[in-house]
Amino acid sequence: MHSVQFTAETSSDGLRERDFTVGEVPGVLWSPVSGPDRAPLVLMGHGGGTHKKAPAMAGRAQLLVTGCGFHVATIDAPGHGGRPRTAHDEREIAAMQQAMATGEPVGPIVVRYNAHLAERAVPEWQATLDALQELPEIGTEGPVGYFGLNMGTAIGVPLTAIEPRITAAVFGLFWPDPLAETARRITVPIEYALQWDDEHIPRESGLALFDAFASKEKTLHANAGAHKELPRFEADSAVRFFARHLGRAVMTPA
Amino acid sequence: MHSVQFTAETSSDGLRERDFTVGEVPGVLWSPVSGPDRAPLVLMGHGGGTHKKAPAMAGRAQLLVTGCGFHVATIDAPGHGGRPRTAHDEREIAAMQQAMATGEPVGPIVVRYNAHLAERAVPEWQATLDALQELPEIGTEGPVGYFGLNMGTAIGVPLTAIEPRITAAVFGLFWPDPLAETARRITVPIEYALQWDDEHIPRESGLALFDAFASKEKTLHANAGAHKELPRFEADSAVRFFARHLGRAVMTPA
Repeated sequence: MHSVQFTAETSSDGLRERDFTVGEVPGVLWSPVSGPDRAPLVLMGHGGGTHKKAPAMAGRAQLLVTGCGFHVATIDAPGHGGRPRTAHDEREIAAMQQAMATGEPVGPIVVRYNAHLAERAVPEWQATLDALQELPEIGTEGPVGYFGLNMGTAIGVPLTAIEPRITAAVFGLFWPDPLAETARRITVPIEYALQWDDEHIPRESGLALFDAFASKEKTLHANAGAHKELPRFEADSAVRFFARHLGRAVMTPA
Repeated sequence: MHSVQFTAETSSDGLRERDFTVGEVPGVLWSPVSGPDRAPLVLMGHGGGTHKKAPAMAGRAQLLVTGCGFHVATIDAPGHGGRPRTAHDEREIAAMQQAMATGEPVGPIVVRYNAHLAERAVPEWQATLDALQELPEIGTEGPVGYFGLNMGTAIGVPLTAIEPRITAAVFGLFWPDPLAETARRITVPIEYALQWDDEHIPRESGLALFDAFASKEKTLHANAGAHKELPRFEADSAVRFFARHLGRAVMTPA
């Protein structure tokens, strides 16, 4: 088992940011600056084509850390951020770019490629979680959440389905086939984001994936707008969802 | 035009509660105890068979007043609370009770009866709003919200469609026919609550009513569970929705 190797550290606005590696996988751990108290951990999966420190990741981490005192960890997905791409990665990325250039549906390629990436990413997430739980400020007792949209959902659904340490998850913006089959094995509380006028994911498809989760507590947030127009207030909503389920009060007006 | 006649007043937990009448219509105005500052007004419509001070109304008023400093007003719908019932009311209530007793669908009767009640209630709401805006602590300049589920939606959708003073609304838990036609004239921001496993309102029907609103900003909150199992946290969500759209920060952890 690999342990967490910290490689850089900065602090600002109440947020301590530590770059780390677990084996070959680079990640970042955001924590409150204020102390060594144990706190719940939220794992965040980034979207396709972005990376562990993309603005959406840093912004959500800020809300979760300063709002609830959580620890938040992201890792670069395979082939993303600074990580090497395989020949398979290069082929699929070229196929996506070609589809976008010619106006063909990109969905089938995203679904196929993200399913492949999930097979590589799930064991990496599990090894990362093993290592993070060795840290005294996280530990093995506290609850763990998962938050990921788009590719973060394609990876997070199979991860949550097989990882009993994850007790609540926020997903969204993905296709149901073949993910719905895996979602049927998930019973932890779920919040699911969907764009009502998504130009890539048909409305019925998004509703079908939400419907598939076996969770007794699940909430769909469907907002008017296109695929990339998810409102900012959904990040605040996710913070409150994790505050409810991981057992912290939201400390700031939100 | 009738003015507001206050008939009783109590205060507790930061909440000032004043019973009033506007003409024949009894209502209650909840306000912050702390002062005469002008603040936005939220009109709340109660559900069928309940009244202006039902626990759901008082609970939501508490959240809106202590959370955002809003004024909140409810009135008894026609035939509800202490108000007299017409022969028509008595016939429709008997028809609903018989349907429930025999296990027949109650939806068609609720839809028909609530449409009738809305015709009587909408002018009462407008007269109430006219009168409330005469009060110095409300005034005619501030924004106005509407919050009502079930029968509160059956009345609130036609009210919001013709009442330009209402600039944001929370609706939910109703059938689309014939309400969807009216919803197509509504363009203000909307939050809409739907129960994913509603035993009275088919899922497709609830989605169709949400779809009908012409609002550029609209959000559907669909929760797992039966008709009466709307989660408590949706009331907190409505508070934040009104805080965003009526221009106040949420003052307490929510």
